[in-house]
Amino acid sequence: MAEQAVSTPTVAPPQSDQVVACVAYAGGKRLGTVEIDDISEILKFEGQFIWIGLYEPGEELLRKIKEEFGLHELAIEDAHTAHQRPKVEEYGDSLFVVLRTARLLEKKIEFGETHLFVGKRYIVTVRHGASSPYTAVRIRCESSPQHLRMGPGFVLYAVMDYVVDQYFPVIGELEEILEEIEEVVFAGTFGRDTTERIYDLKRQLVDLKRAVSPLVDVCNRLIRFDLGLIPAEAQPYLRDVYDHAVRINESVDLLREMLSSALEAHLSLVGVNQNEVTKKLASWAAIIAVPTMVAGIYGMNFEHMPELRWQYGYLVALGVMAGACGMLYAWFRRSGWL
Amino acid sequence: MAEQAVSTPTVAPPQSDQVVACVAYAGGKRLGTVEIDDISEILKFEGQFIWIGLYEPGEELLRKIKEEFGLHELAIEDAHTAHQRPKVEEYGDSLFVVLRTARLLEKKIEFGETHLFVGKRYIVTVRHGASSPYTAVRIRCESSPQHLRMGPGFVLYAVMDYVVDQYFPVIGELEEILEEIEEVVFAGTFGRDTTERIYDLKRQLVDLKRAVSPLVDVCNRLIRFDLGLIPAEAQPYLRDVYDHAVRINESVDLLREMLSSALEAHLSLVGVNQNEVTKKLASWAAIIAVPTMVAGIYGMNFEHMPELRWQYGYLVALGVMAGACGMLYAWFRRSGWL
Amino acid sequence: MAEQAVSTPTVAPPQSDQVVACVAYAGGKRLGTVEIDDISEILKFEGQFIWIGLYEPGEELLRKIKEEFGLHELAIEDAHTAHQRPKVEEYGDSLFVVLRTARLLEKKIEFGETHLFVGKRYIVTVRHGASSPYTAVRIRCESSPQHLRMGPGFVLYAVMDYVVDQYFPVIGELEEILEEIEEVVFAGTFGRDTTERIYDLKRQLVDLKRAVSPLVDVCNRLIRFDLGLIPAEAQPYLRDVYDHAVRINESVDLLREMLSSALEAHLSLVGVNQNEVTKKLASWAAIIAVPTMVAGIYGMNFEHMPELRWQYGYLVALGVMAGACGMLYAWFRRSGWL
Amino acid sequence: MAEQAVSTPTVAPPQSDQVVACVAYAGGKRLGTVEIDDISEILKFEGQFIWIGLYEPGEELLRKIKEEFGLHELAIEDAHTAHQRPKVEEYGDSLFVVLRTARLLEKKIEFGETHLFVGKRYIVTVRHGASSPYTAVRIRCESSPQHLRMGPGFVLYAVMDYVVDQYFPVIGELEEILEEIEEVVFAGTFGRDTTERIYDLKRQLVDLKRAVSPLVDVCNRLIRFDLGLIPAEAQPYLRDVYDHAVRINESVDLLREMLSSALEAHLSLVGVNQNEVTKKLASWAAIIAVPTMVAGIYGMNFEHMPELRWQYGYLVALGVMAGACGMLYAWFRRSGWL
Amino acid sequence: MAEQAVSTPTVAPPQSDQVVACVAYAGGKRLGTVEIDDISEILKFEGQFIWIGLYEPGEELLRKIKEEFGLHELAIEDAHTAHQRPKVEEYGDSLFVVLRTARLLEKKIEFGETHLFVGKRYIVTVRHGASSPYTAVRIRCESSPQHLRMGPGFVLYAVMDYVVDQYFPVIGELEEILEEIEEVVFAGTFGRDTTERIYDLKRQLVDLKRAVSPLVDVCNRLIRFDLGLIPAEAQPYLRDVYDHAVRINESVDLLREMLSSALEAHLSLVGVNQNEVTKKLASWAAIIAVPTMVAGIYGMNFEHMPELRWQYGYLVALGVMAGACGMLYAWFRRSGWL
Repeated sequence: MAEQAVSTPTVAPPQSDQVVACVAYAGGKRLGTVEIDDISEILKFEGQFIWIGLYEPGEELLRKIKEEFGLHELAIEDAHTAHQRPKVEEYGDSLFVVLRTARLLEKKIEFGETHLFVGKRYIVTVRHGASSPYTAVRIRCESSPQHLRMGPGFVLYAVMDYVVDQYFPVIGELEEILEEIEEVVFAGTFGRDTTERIYDLKRQLVDLKRAVSPLVDVCNRLIRFDLGLIPAEAQPYLRDVYDHAVRINESVDLLREMLSSALEAHLSLVGVNQNEVTKKLASWAAIIAVPTMVAGIYGMNFEHMPELRWQYGYLVALGVMAGACGMLYAWFRRSGWL
Repeated sequence: MAEQAVSTPTVAPPQSDQVVACVAYAGGKRLGTVEIDDISEILKFEGQFIWIGLYEPGEELLRKIKEEFGLHELAIEDAHTAHQRPKVEEYGDSLFVVLRTARLLEKKIEFGETHLFVGKRYIVTVRHGASSPYTAVRIRCESSPQHLRMGPGFVLYAVMDYVVDQYFPVIGELEEILEEIEEVVFAGTFGRDTTERIYDLKRQLVDLKRAVSPLVDVCNRLIRFDLGLIPAEAQPYLRDVYDHAVRINESVDLLREMLSSALEAHLSLVGVNQNEVTKKLASWAAIIAVPTMVAGIYGMNFEHMPELRWQYGYLVALGVMAGACGMLYAWFRRSGWL
Repeated sequence: MAEQAVSTPTVAPPQSDQVVACVAYAGGKRLGTVEIDDISEILKFEGQFIWIGLYEPGEELLRKIKEEFGLHELAIEDAHTAHQRPKVEEYGDSLFVVLRTARLLEKKIEFGETHLFVGKRYIVTVRHGASSPYTAVRIRCESSPQHLRMGPGFVLYAVMDYVVDQYFPVIGELEEILEEIEEVVFAGTFGRDTTERIYDLKRQLVDLKRAVSPLVDVCNRLIRFDLGLIPAEAQPYLRDVYDHAVRINESVDLLREMLSSALEAHLSLVGVNQNEVTKKLASWAAIIAVPTMVAGIYGMNFEHMPELRWQYGYLVALGVMAGACGMLYAWFRRSGWL
Repeated sequence: MAEQAVSTPTVAPPQSDQVVACVAYAGGKRLGTVEIDDISEILKFEGQFIWIGLYEPGEELLRKIKEEFGLHELAIEDAHTAHQRPKVEEYGDSLFVVLRTARLLEKKIEFGETHLFVGKRYIVTVRHGASSPYTAVRIRCESSPQHLRMGPGFVLYAVMDYVVDQYFPVIGELEEILEEIEEVVFAGTFGRDTTERIYDLKRQLVDLKRAVSPLVDVCNRLIRFDLGLIPAEAQPYLRDVYDHAVRINESVDLLREMLSSALEAHLSLVGVNQNEVTKKLASWAAIIAVPTMVAGIYGMNFEHMPELRWQYGYLVALGVMAGACGMLYAWFRRSGWL
Repeated sequence: MAEQAVSTPTVAPPQSDQVVACVAYAGGKRLGTVEIDDISEILKFEGQFIWIGLYEPGEELLRKIKEEFGLHELAIEDAHTAHQRPKVEEYGDSLFVVLRTARLLEKKIEFGETHLFVGKRYIVTVRHGASSPYTAVRIRCESSPQHLRMGPGFVLYAVMDYVVDQYFPVIGELEEILEEIEEVVFAGTFGRDTTERIYDLKRQLVDLKRAVSPLVDVCNRLIRFDLGLIPAEAQPYLRDVYDHAVRINESVDLLREMLSSALEAHLSLVGVNQNEVTKKLASWAAIIAVPTMVAGIYGMNFEHMPELRWQYGYLVALGVMAGACGMLYAWFRRSGWL
């Protein structure tokens, strides 16, 4: 029932204020949705665990959950205010994981946050800002009981895998933008907006880097942690997520490197173009200046200028001008200035 | 009473020369203000600790405190001269912590210093230069006795948290300055002061980096220290401060990166603009040079220039000139030079 | 028989769907090709091992191999989808190694992938994309039984050695391209395509770096691994591969450094050239402007201009013009502007 | 007596060839100067130590000292030839420390070297090149017997403190030079010597960095050394020197960073200036070209040019020219080109 | 006899094909040259060791040596093909060291390689390419038996010391080239070959860096190695070589940094020069354009131009032109444009 509400989030509002889902599992199988107030009942039975999904929860709800699972006040504060950087922290026998999520909306990256509280018998996911609900993750987990049997550690993996995999289309989009920039740069139309687009992409890459780079660290530390929370058979799965995070991180670095190369190429081409323009300017200036000078000479008012009285003086003068222009044109052409 | 003096620092002078406050605590509760000379009395009772707040103390006062708590002469010297870089040092069973504080005053960053001596039964805070008094911190501490019970270690956290959190508005201000610079850069008015503003922001960022970067280190070392001074339950709080310091540090790095990108964009746009200006210059030069040349030709004094005698020669000449100008104009327009 | 198919891969299709070869070895000697379904028979005998070579295998085939050797599902998934970054991972008592291969085809680099599953009694090589078959490796291994006796660890070395050595001609090709770019840059013909070629080479180097850099790491980790899979006497061989990988990595770094130096040189020469062009432009403008000015003066219509009536006024004027031009020309020549 | 010679080094020559001082201490008190040949006498008594100060000593003198204290031949060779980089080395139970000293002479940095041999019962300081004598250090040490009681380890600290503190005025001088450069850069007079001054400062910073950077390392290693040579109570003092070295190192880095920012600002301003100059050139070219063109038109010799016969044709023409110039001027002014 | 051949390598060919020397030592003293085939005889006696010097040895010779000393086939392969990067490797109880040697020949750097096999009782040096023979090293070793007594470990040091010291003149040469470049850059003659020389030096520095940087690593690892091959008393000597290698490495880095600063200065000066040229161009254009314009005005054919009829109209016009030119000239001069 709660599940239904989640699967069509745009129509039905979530169950109770910001609780998206609260489900109990045992032996890799779903027992059913639970009311938040009945959690302590469930936790009495060995081998069961609870997965609570929240979206931008209020203070009261978080306080209830804090008391239920004995979480640390600082972690709860973080989960309330959001705007944390990705990290993983131990509080006694529970883990607190912060992830940044990314989503494409109309070719723009939107960042969100997910906070996870993981204990032996529970996992709480808290979503903030622009982020897709984890219904798909829940369905995937429930469809493979042999994995879900590992407990909250596997759910942690499944959520992280989902979060990390959503970065791939973002990278793809940015790669496309880079390609467009490359095209514009090498097409040789040096509008001002080329620089602006490069700057915009740069900013997006810096933001992305800031989200992705600590993610690699989080994955790495989770692999190393030895808390009993993450069973040995879940390790290869976390290593897989780590691998994806490293690949995304590498892609961001590569994009940054190619972007700054593109900017360098842009600068270099602007310089080359300036060169060409100046050469063209100089060539045409010369081609026009020569006949002007000749005309100036025959415009002088000396009394004794024999050419002025020649029958064909004018034509010869015009011919000289045209000839000079033609020769200059040919010469500049050959030198590659025109 | 001393507290009152502190809460309105602009009207009443501090208690005795540079002692801002000297308060005794026991079991998380405030016992009351104490005279500096009565400290040894207080320290006799187990479970009590003293918090002394100083502002730019004189040599004599520091010597008194040195003897009272058995501090190291070098630490006292540092606390007197200030101009230290943020650090944490062990002297026997006491810690000496140096922090740089930052404050915004009329959109300018002002840096100050805070030195902390932390022992099992005392904490001494020494402020230098531009820095807000720690009255707010004291009030916050006293309002949560369950935390203050941890002793001087918690006060250390509270002061550090306060110091670190004051960097956030500074970062915010610099982000605004960067945005203004971005606007000016992309508006395309290439005044010299754009460069100057970029340089100014750069300098502020370098100063900020210098203050913040060792702060991360200080926090990190405090978490790792195992001295009995910082109780286990205070560790998560220090980790929280560490987190904030890392975030501020990251923001400074990000600002630096975007600033140098902005400078690159500026350089690139200046190049593009130079290109445009040269093209415009060349175009108009050509447009004016052609009629000048034509006029020069018909200004020649040859006797046999039939056009000169035509009825409409002049009008035709003007027409040719206007036509040539118009064609050139259209052509340059189409090529994007004008 | 299967071998024959491999040695002429363009004519005959591989044995059974994507199995290129499946050979059993014992005591450093080849026992003969085996059907995939008979593997378990072979593995019963102590001292024997199997080498299976696959090319872009289907899901079903991989599942069969997974079950036969007890491989991890994640490794199998990786081997199926490819697009992994070079890495080495332990799964229980088997290793999973991912390598990127490079090949030159018509002066273009083509990247492929090779995945290796190495166990005590088997090695499976899975090729993806553009990569040469490992027939040459197999022949080399079989021709030195004293080495092959080391088991799958030596085959792992042989494959890695082959993969790494194929990077050398790629480096050679890129070095040639860099030399061509250097020639073009210093020849002083500043076409736009110079920038484009630099950018292209940059992109290829970035891709290459991405393939080679983790390779060094993989080699290094294989040397350090202590699993019993790689016998002590195989260590020096792996160190040799590591050495080659480091050398290739260094060459890529060197190429990148020289390339960015070449770009800097290009920018610098464009600037110098711009300088020269502007100087030339200025010189010729002056040389033409002076006689034009003189002609203008004698074109004035004042009634009292004594020079106009002199017998040789015109000739003198022409002489002055020519003289001024000549002097300017000589002067610009001497100053290095022309 | 020897002391006197030292305190006025410009008048009296040092005691015996390059021995500046050779003093025996016991229990933190000065016993008096000693002849080099009597050292072995002194060393017989427990609790005494000797401090020998040398300036560019000859081979023979060094050999004598080598034999007296059993120093290593390589250290002696280094101390003779100088031109070492700052380092600290253990030879058996003695330390060999090399420091670079810096001194300002007429606004120029002069580098020197100091080599220290430290043993349980002796310290030998060897100065090379431009460096101040350590008389001041000796006086300071002798005036605090409670510290000097620590033995040669404290003298080592005192010398290092003196050496490190002499870098502060050097930093101050370079900061002033940077400020002058900043002023010149932003004043907008782009002489060639601005670049030359930036380059000069850069070179000085590189040299300084080379001297200071290993100094930090030397201090750090001395703190970590556990040789019995440096007593526990001397550690905080060495940490203090380390702190100063780190601060100097940071200042050098900051200067380097600001210098390259200044160069960037310079380049950017040259670009902006080029832009402005080109715009001015273009504007004035246009303003002069238009009346020239008009004049050219009315200089044509057509028979039928009605304007030429008008009474006020000339004045109207002049008016048109002046008007066009004025309008152009206003327009360029408004566009910010003039 | 073999020695003689070596000391005058240009006249007499080496002893037997590529064996330069094969000498036996015992107790720090030279026993005499030995035939390669008699080595095993010598090795029977405790306390003796053999030093074999080879130059580009053939495969057969290397095989003989491999069998005699039980070397690893991979090391032998490396020693045959050369083109290795500097490294040190352990093979059982022997060391294999690769060094790159550098030599100046007519102001050009020539690189060579030296491979060393070091065992308890032997050392084999294999030279490749451009490298000086080690006769000088041998003579130096033999002249200090107290050192040579340490065995092959000391010979290793002596060779490395010789190799490293030969880098110093190379560094000196490159420093001179840098100085020449600096002079050309600041002389302000911006020929294209300045850029080419900078690029050439850059390439040489990159090559040098590649040779020197791993050398530091090799020295460092040799100091750390604990194999019994290098006796404790040889450690300080290796540390000395390490120190020299670090200094050379630092010099290369410093050269690289100053070179890129020189390039930046070059670019900056080209920009400043462009500025100056444009200003000069603009100034002269204006100075010539104004009289041309005035002449144009008085060249108009209006009937009513009273000035034309004035007695001194022409002189006044000339005066106005000269005055305008003079004023413009003075004004441009004052503004620093001329």
